[in-house]
Amino acid sequence: MKKRRDYHVQQRYDKERQRNVLARPGQHQFCLVLDQLKPFFNPPKIFRSAEAFGAAAVHLVNIGTFDPAPAKGSFRKVPAHFHDDFAACYQQLAHEGYTLFRLDPQAQECLCRCALPEKTAFILGHEEFGCSFDPADYPAIRSISIPQYGGVQSLNVSIAASIVMYEYVRQQLA
Amino acid sequence: MKKRRDYHVQQRYDKERQRNVLARPGQHQFCLVLDQLKPFFNPPKIFRSAEAFGAAAVHLVNIGTFDPAPAKGSFRKVPAHFHDDFAACYQQLAHEGYTLFRLDPQAQECLCRCALPEKTAFILGHEEFGCSFDPADYPAIRSISIPQYGGVQSLNVSIAASIVMYEYVRQQLA
Repeated sequence: MKKRRDYHVQQRYDKERQRNVLARPGQHQFCLVLDQLKPFFNPPKIFRSAEAFGAAAVHLVNIGTFDPAPAKGSFRKVPAHFHDDFAACYQQLAHEGYTLFRLDPQAQECLCRCALPEKTAFILGHEEFGCSFDPADYPAIRSISIPQYGGVQSLNVSIAASIVMYEYVRQQLA
Repeated sequence: MKKRRDYHVQQRYDKERQRNVLARPGQHQFCLVLDQLKPFFNPPKIFRSAEAFGAAAVHLVNIGTFDPAPAKGSFRKVPAHFHDDFAACYQQLAHEGYTLFRLDPQAQECLCRCALPEKTAFILGHEEFGCSFDPADYPAIRSISIPQYGGVQSLNVSIAASIVMYEYVRQQLA
């Protein structure tokens, strides 16, 4: 049963990924970097919100096959870029003139007090293990946090992604 | 198998709901109203984010048993109020001095241009069917929307909940 389901997931993923070559950037210039997230539910959910907020692109660093169903059709609509490692992704974004921000619950700088440039790239790391790279190797990447008050620093990564996109759009509209 | 799983979900729900009587309000005065949401994944996920953002309470209008697991322990931590219908919920919140805002993708007023009072209650309706009440019966409830650009108005309800909570907190910190 599991093998058969995996086969169908792979088929759907391949089909949507092929269609993605025709995807067009959204209304805004920001983009997202999904840095080695677990390939289950979060990547497709993030595509859904990325489409809603008009993202220019989603960069996937070393993320395997995922079921496109939770994306509700958005995996084919937001331009996706696939990288084997973060270094390749960074090189492309730096070349394109992006300022990179890394979401980090421990960061001093608060998202809501940070002026986001038009060409902003938000890096989202693995929920347990964080980013795949050593931040010390990328001094140009700024660390920001979302204000939280609970006992555990516990926003889900697809929730965190939608909040940074909202904040970007809010600043553009202000 | 399904019956047995249902039994365990009911047990976990009952246990967490009992512990909820000891829950203490978070750092902020805002609260959420979950108006007849489907009782699967969204209510527990919303508890998780509500705890992270320091919500005072979550009001559940006619929502059945749900699996508390996706709440990651937050269903017992944020004070929960259970109502049979929206009228009872409205009466309590109006009595407590709350201003109520209804999330509505069609609303003219944008969340990011709306000054939120300290005692704000956000109403989240069913993803397909919207609110359980006729807005014309509650003229004091204001309708607000989250800016969206995709082909479909398609933010998931737990994502929408986290965005309004973030915006509330952002305004409190400003």
